[in-house]
Amino acid sequence: MSMPIAQALHAIVGEIGLLSGEDVSARSCDPFRNVPPRGGLIVRPASTAELSAVMALCSARGQAVVAHGGRTGVSGGAYAGESEIVVSLERMRAVLEISPEGPLAVVEAGASVEALQQAAAAQGLFYPVDLGSKGSATIGGTIATNAGGNRVLRWGMTRQNLLGVEAVLADGTVVSSMNRLLKNNMGYALKDILCGSEGTLGIITRAVLRLVPQPSSQDVAFVSVTDHAALVALLARARRLPTLSAFEVMWPDYYDLVAASDTGRRPVPPGTGPCVLVESMGYHPESDRRQFEEFLFDAGENGLIADAVLAESGKQVAELWRVREAAEVIVRAMSPFVSFDISLGVADIEPFLPRVRDALLQRFGILRTATFGHLGDNNIHIAAYVGPDTAALESEVEAVVFGVLRGYDGAITAEHGIGQHKRVFLPAHKHTGEMEMMRRLRDALDPDRLLNRDVLF
Amino acid sequence: MSMPIAQALHAIVGEIGLLSGEDVSARSCDPFRNVPPRGGLIVRPASTAELSAVMALCSARGQAVVAHGGRTGVSGGAYAGESEIVVSLERMRAVLEISPEGPLAVVEAGASVEALQQAAAAQGLFYPVDLGSKGSATIGGTIATNAGGNRVLRWGMTRQNLLGVEAVLADGTVVSSMNRLLKNNMGYALKDILCGSEGTLGIITRAVLRLVPQPSSQDVAFVSVTDHAALVALLARARRLPTLSAFEVMWPDYYDLVAASDTGRRPVPPGTGPCVLVESMGYHPESDRRQFEEFLFDAGENGLIADAVLAESGKQVAELWRVREAAEVIVRAMSPFVSFDISLGVADIEPFLPRVRDALLQRFGILRTATFGHLGDNNIHIAAYVGPDTAALESEVEAVVFGVLRGYDGAITAEHGIGQHKRVFLPAHKHTGEMEMMRRLRDALDPDRLLNRDVLF
Repeated sequence: MSMPIAQALHAIVGEIGLLSGEDVSARSCDPFRNVPPRGGLIVRPASTAELSAVMALCSARGQAVVAHGGRTGVSGGAYAGESEIVVSLERMRAVLEISPEGPLAVVEAGASVEALQQAAAAQGLFYPVDLGSKGSATIGGTIATNAGGNRVLRWGMTRQNLLGVEAVLADGTVVSSMNRLLKNNMGYALKDILCGSEGTLGIITRAVLRLVPQPSSQDVAFVSVTDHAALVALLARARRLPTLSAFEVMWPDYYDLVAASDTGRRPVPPGTGPCVLVESMGYHPESDRRQFEEFLFDAGENGLIADAVLAESGKQVAELWRVREAAEVIVRAMSPFVSFDISLGVADIEPFLPRVRDALLQRFGILRTATFGHLGDNNIHIAAYVGPDTAALESEVEAVVFGVLRGYDGAITAEHGIGQHKRVFLPAHKHTGEMEMMRRLRDALDPDRLLNRDVLF
Repeated sequence: MSMPIAQALHAIVGEIGLLSGEDVSARSCDPFRNVPPRGGLIVRPASTAELSAVMALCSARGQAVVAHGGRTGVSGGAYAGESEIVVSLERMRAVLEISPEGPLAVVEAGASVEALQQAAAAQGLFYPVDLGSKGSATIGGTIATNAGGNRVLRWGMTRQNLLGVEAVLADGTVVSSMNRLLKNNMGYALKDILCGSEGTLGIITRAVLRLVPQPSSQDVAFVSVTDHAALVALLARARRLPTLSAFEVMWPDYYDLVAASDTGRRPVPPGTGPCVLVESMGYHPESDRRQFEEFLFDAGENGLIADAVLAESGKQVAELWRVREAAEVIVRAMSPFVSFDISLGVADIEPFLPRVRDALLQRFGILRTATFGHLGDNNIHIAAYVGPDTAALESEVEAVVFGVLRGYDGAITAEHGIGQHKRVFLPAHKHTGEMEMMRRLRDALDPDRLLNRDVLF
């Protein structure tokens, strides 16, 4: 007879590598709600070899696992059921190398995004994937979910910054694809399929990430525009700035709340049209500034801008960004609400927004929304309140929004991922051939569905 | 009894869709050598539905196929054996849509790269993947091989410009993943794994490609540097130009040949160090030029540049590019030679080049080389002549070069792909886990190895 799994895991990872009891129940799989792992065990390998042995054991026993990074995901990708053991990468958190040549970084999966950013900054380098949760979010988690953030427009999502990756498959096979080269056409893009697979194809253990030189210029303007046409025209002009790093739109339902709050965030008078935070980051402070000012001037001359503020100091830059990152104002003013992370064509946003609001209002009789997003990436976020029972009505609210979105070929998640929460909605938004191909790939790598079994599909 | 396969294919694609006899033997699978398809049949579906029916038939019959785009690949990916039928996408060549919103293009796989570029240019837009063979190379072929080219530094390889894709799997399953959104995190990156799979996972039928606004500035300088350290320092400075679009290095073995030719290509005096063509493309002619001149001036002040020429007109830009694109001079001066398309770390190039030359000279007793490449992407090309029997010695020459390259963790192909020609060398340059994962993915999608069976691995 084989020994109990806890004992067998202990033999691989030792005392420090295995948590149980209160050490498990004190954790949450959700950043906002208290949702402890229900399986009672957390295994914490110290190396790829240990994780490989853990997965070989789990595979032999048919033991399902859920991978944990920083547990900052909002789609339920880290939820662990009674029959699942948690595999946490928290003991593999080294920033192994920052190389000015490349430039690139080699990092263990459990390192936080912030730890990488800081290690890079110490050498004048910059890791451009930036998230509000960067202090906790891990490199492995951001790779597994292809995390986005505020500067996707310039530097792409995590996948675009990923050069190489190492992962452990469900049966313990180690796939080391630690490429450091910008161009390498030797076979399938394994890193790209592991990235964004939400832990269902393999568990990321290490990665090679592309860095860029630390920008030396940051120009930020906060402007209001009259209508959607002006917004689209402004975006088209902004795209000609090679240093454009953010184009963050706040619709009136969002900005009115923030501007009316007692937090002093009201750079321009609220109007009928959306506001935009436009940012440029580059390496030539003088000429970057000149180009940025020319862009604003031309946009003004062409009647695209109603009001504008141009930051004159680092302090003002931070203040303008605080208007865009006013989550706590929304939470205070609107809770409970359902959060959306959708994307759709820029031209479709104008008809979509009133249509989705009408649909919600018709269905629930009461509605408050706050709408903002990374317009340059097609990504908009909507917080929707449909009354005091909003939390209980979450999936009904989602069904209404996603129903309208289908008519526009939009994506039900632009950056947060499907996780467990949106799984039920996925097939309606994918081609049947896509679902079939995804199923075949997953079956090929994890035939027993041991990895994040309830995630994605 | 089932009807002969030619007849069954005819029933699907009609008279115009099926070639045999001289129509087949008059074609070549290789852009430089005459290598006709040996199977005697070329099937030319007019639509995704026809291709799906073709593959369902082939799958039922266990009939292997080889996919043909423009047949410009130099790695033997289009070679077709006696038991294989060619599937050509040549009747699916429509540019279906150029959308200023995105901006993006929707294209059938058989359209040429040049056709897409021209259709985009007609609307003030630009498709940045650019190859010498663009007149023949197809969008499908460039996606299947993740083609690179001269401007990867700025806009990436084909994969970075691919938003969505449609493909037909070996059993005829249509996977339509025609995403148009910059951010879409709904499931696995199917487009990214199909891209670069060299036709082994599916046959590309349509794609959505990201476009950019047509650049309005192009600044080009041709400079010589004193040594490798200056070259690396110059690259680091050039990377701070957000508009940097090419950093093309020509080592003395290349530049001396071109400068000594009777073609008038000698912008700077040959010296002991490499030459570089640096290019910037942007949207602000005046300030782009100013930044470019500042970059050159600072590099000169810091002693990084020996000689320099700055193009003052479009004509001069073209003339300087002709120095870098002097393939015919190399062909005339050095044939027969073996061509390499390798990549390795920028810092490794300095020790690598003399070491590989020593190894070749020691092995063959005679050696001439021409070395150039896209240094900013780690990609260098070497043409190696080891005597009149060079062609016959090709795989021995490759074995020597790849043997040295292994010591530097380099890639045996940066952009051309593995095809049939480099297949035997692949396993030695990949981790066993990578080969295993690739095998599982291929088996999952094409268990009978019907697609490009002798390609890749």
